[in-house]
Amino acid sequence: MTSQYDRIQNNHLHSRVVSPEEAASWIEDGMTLGLSGFTRAGDVKAVPFALVERAKEESFKVNVFTGASLGSDIDALFADAGIVHKRLPFQADPTMRRSINNGDMFFVDQHLSHTAELVRSGVMGPVDFAIVEAVAIKEDGQIIPTTSVGNSSLFAMHADHIIVEINLAQTPLLEGVHDIYDTGRQGDRSPIPMMSAKDRIGTPGIQVDPDKIRGIVFTEQADSPSTIVQPDGETQVMAGHLLDFLRKEVEMGRLDETLAPLQSGIGSVANAVLHGMIDSEFEHLEVYSEVLQDAVFDLIDAGKVDFASCCSITLSDDKMKQVFGNFEKYRDLLVMRPQEISNHPEVIRRLGLISINTALEFDIYGNVNSTHVSGTKMMNGIGGSGDFARNARLAIFVTKSTAKGGNISSIVPFVSHVDHTEHDVDVVVTEQGYADLRGLSPRERVPLIIENCAHPDYKEQLWAYYEEALGRGGQTPHVLEKAFSWHQNLAENGTMKFEKEQKETAEVR
Amino acid sequence: MTSQYDRIQNNHLHSRVVSPEEAASWIEDGMTLGLSGFTRAGDVKAVPFALVERAKEESFKVNVFTGASLGSDIDALFADAGIVHKRLPFQADPTMRRSINNGDMFFVDQHLSHTAELVRSGVMGPVDFAIVEAVAIKEDGQIIPTTSVGNSSLFAMHADHIIVEINLAQTPLLEGVHDIYDTGRQGDRSPIPMMSAKDRIGTPGIQVDPDKIRGIVFTEQADSPSTIVQPDGETQVMAGHLLDFLRKEVEMGRLDETLAPLQSGIGSVANAVLHGMIDSEFEHLEVYSEVLQDAVFDLIDAGKVDFASCCSITLSDDKMKQVFGNFEKYRDLLVMRPQEISNHPEVIRRLGLISINTALEFDIYGNVNSTHVSGTKMMNGIGGSGDFARNARLAIFVTKSTAKGGNISSIVPFVSHVDHTEHDVDVVVTEQGYADLRGLSPRERVPLIIENCAHPDYKEQLWAYYEEALGRGGQTPHVLEKAFSWHQNLAENGTMKFEKEQKETAEVR
Repeated sequence: MTSQYDRIQNNHLHSRVVSPEEAASWIEDGMTLGLSGFTRAGDVKAVPFALVERAKEESFKVNVFTGASLGSDIDALFADAGIVHKRLPFQADPTMRRSINNGDMFFVDQHLSHTAELVRSGVMGPVDFAIVEAVAIKEDGQIIPTTSVGNSSLFAMHADHIIVEINLAQTPLLEGVHDIYDTGRQGDRSPIPMMSAKDRIGTPGIQVDPDKIRGIVFTEQADSPSTIVQPDGETQVMAGHLLDFLRKEVEMGRLDETLAPLQSGIGSVANAVLHGMIDSEFEHLEVYSEVLQDAVFDLIDAGKVDFASCCSITLSDDKMKQVFGNFEKYRDLLVMRPQEISNHPEVIRRLGLISINTALEFDIYGNVNSTHVSGTKMMNGIGGSGDFARNARLAIFVTKSTAKGGNISSIVPFVSHVDHTEHDVDVVVTEQGYADLRGLSPRERVPLIIENCAHPDYKEQLWAYYEEALGRGGQTPHVLEKAFSWHQNLAENGTMKFEKEQKETAEVR
Repeated sequence: MTSQYDRIQNNHLHSRVVSPEEAASWIEDGMTLGLSGFTRAGDVKAVPFALVERAKEESFKVNVFTGASLGSDIDALFADAGIVHKRLPFQADPTMRRSINNGDMFFVDQHLSHTAELVRSGVMGPVDFAIVEAVAIKEDGQIIPTTSVGNSSLFAMHADHIIVEINLAQTPLLEGVHDIYDTGRQGDRSPIPMMSAKDRIGTPGIQVDPDKIRGIVFTEQADSPSTIVQPDGETQVMAGHLLDFLRKEVEMGRLDETLAPLQSGIGSVANAVLHGMIDSEFEHLEVYSEVLQDAVFDLIDAGKVDFASCCSITLSDDKMKQVFGNFEKYRDLLVMRPQEISNHPEVIRRLGLISINTALEFDIYGNVNSTHVSGTKMMNGIGGSGDFARNARLAIFVTKSTAKGGNISSIVPFVSHVDHTEHDVDVVVTEQGYADLRGLSPRERVPLIIENCAHPDYKEQLWAYYEEALGRGGQTPHVLEKAFSWHQNLAENGTMKFEKEQKETAEVR
């Protein structure tokens, strides 16, 4: 007969099993918590819930550091309870977003590979508690993570205390999939010895002093399924454009049909683009990404992807059952790494990734906004897009050319917030087409972006702006007093279209 | 008796010696030239001059790729002759700047570490001629560069033909100082085996097939001296603030008195900051930078710097005489690398550099403009600042808080061009003080930036903008319709000050 205690193979640690409530009671006002969890996968659940319960009786605030976004509505519950002083490096929850944008809490929007350096250097103070989800604790104290690594190993190594949540709903077959590697301190560090997406360079679990494990909690709650929207007509067309671009690279001899390791950001568009490869001629593909979404497993099933490296696995409900219900089939084709490694500039540049991420908007010169609606309100955060775009072989950004029924153009004169500068953006893709910006000066980029990517409803307006700007001259011509006029028009009139009749047409549609 | 032919140790190549005019005659309309030269050091001189002469008789255009800026007025002569179709990745010449901003030629403003990947991948077409300055050609055909490496090895390896300019004015003692390493193609690449600024990982010269050397030209023209302005009162105060910040890092145990390898951008402010270390308590310093300016040699003379890695040496007239006249004293303390290596994210992050670069302006949230005056007119280019800032242990930007007699504030509500995003900027320094932005959300950054860095004449205006923006809410509050109002006011009224009486006060001073 198996017992849940079998998951704690170090017998000395059996006495550390406590209730989530007890573990939560150790957390004090002003502390910093390092939670496991990356894009809804492998997040701790029981202790956060207990902490939210405690907040009904007591007033306190904590800093919450994670891998990326959490599932199980934890960010919403935290925000509603008002217990977060500072949150980093990423979130994707509507309730928390509201708190952030209202100024009720601080959010530090970081490159996902940067958090590790900051924690290691101690700049943000100590991590008081690392709280990490695991499938097991080994005899030597190694903690085996679940469906994400994120910053879990970092937090566990640097925290004063560790609380482990052993999640019995996660398949024990996850053991052996992780590859935990710590870079060590800057200036006292060797090269990361990875030459291919497949290379294993670390240990299967997080090595910590078992005495630091202050408490162990059991839970059985599954990860939250991804909320991904399935490919639609427009995302399929975008995927087609991107495939055309990649075909051209093959034709020019710059890639072969195995392409290069693929990174794809989270989101429906990026997922659809990967999905579009199923029926393509590309084969023996490799993935070196943060998150594996449904499409990667479809590509594995279709015999298109040979191997996938990631930092988390985030699937829809059905796909979760299929993948984790048949995990023997997939586990040898996967490796799961800390986000510092999945997103490390050293590895990204060496492997020469093809990086596909979603833009909120981009401008006529190729600057990209990934985070702020109309320059002010945070959506989710930059995530890993900057780690990848800056260092990839191909930094590709995708977005539909319009939003809000055509009243927002995703291509604007001047992005209202810059997350990726013109220096870091190689190719932009919309359902209209793609623009290959490599080696082009700003003035050379404009016609490609407007003609290939903008929606026909906005082309004339974009040309009008650019022509007026050209009259002022410069490397990057602008009419500064009108640079944000499209966003202003949106705020005032609900549309970026300047002609009243155009707006009415859009409303009729 | 020595002859200039002693510099060509491969006897088969003696027959390739030609006049600069003959070498220049091989260049055809539409070709791409890869020239040596980085921040006025080690640039080819004779063939470019001959090419400019040819342009008096003939109409043609070429693409000019370099390491960085050229000396000897070559960029000015090229621009005046109208022979450049596209220039990359950096320039710093007023005449060429005018041509760029007038739209008479294209300028691609690239991260200095990125050019190599683009050339290697063939995206920008072939390099027809690499034209590189050398002190010698070895028996096996190795080309020994002079006072910069820049992209010379890249161009020589990838060009169809090579023209070597042997510069008899450059000391032959430069041989042995260079360390030429090629990363190879992305995806087929090993880690860069460097663990410290001192490590030598390559060869002393550029290894090429001697048959590719189509012509050899002799010249005796010295490098152009740097135009650096000596430290003044304000830059000394800024250096003091930066040293205070570094002292605090030592106090907090995050650095010791040897600090970490230093990178310092070109320019008077950065030079002054390094100069400020001479009388500090810091010692056994290492430099891992692009360009070594005067200050590094002063620090070596003062026994403060133990070793310096660079990609070029750019000195004032007097310093050039001192350093190259006594080069035995310095050569074992120096290594000169290709710019892909001096600026490589892999190495920068591994070594954990302290990176100090100059900003044109920064905004209340910490975004930095390094390139565009009022968002439109190119100054010089981003250079290596992005390579370093994104990957360094400490990304520090320095600038005086005002310019143009106080009519321009370097701290603005919204930078008119973004080269370094809020995600990549750790510390900003002006003569007023410094703001340590690490781990801070946008709203936490504002008071530090305004109170510590802005000029007193502009604090009230900055607070007024921010308070109005706060009323609109958001992670990064802005009043979009006023975001560039300071730049507009400057264009219309010659000042960023909104109060007429304030402007008059400034004029009286």
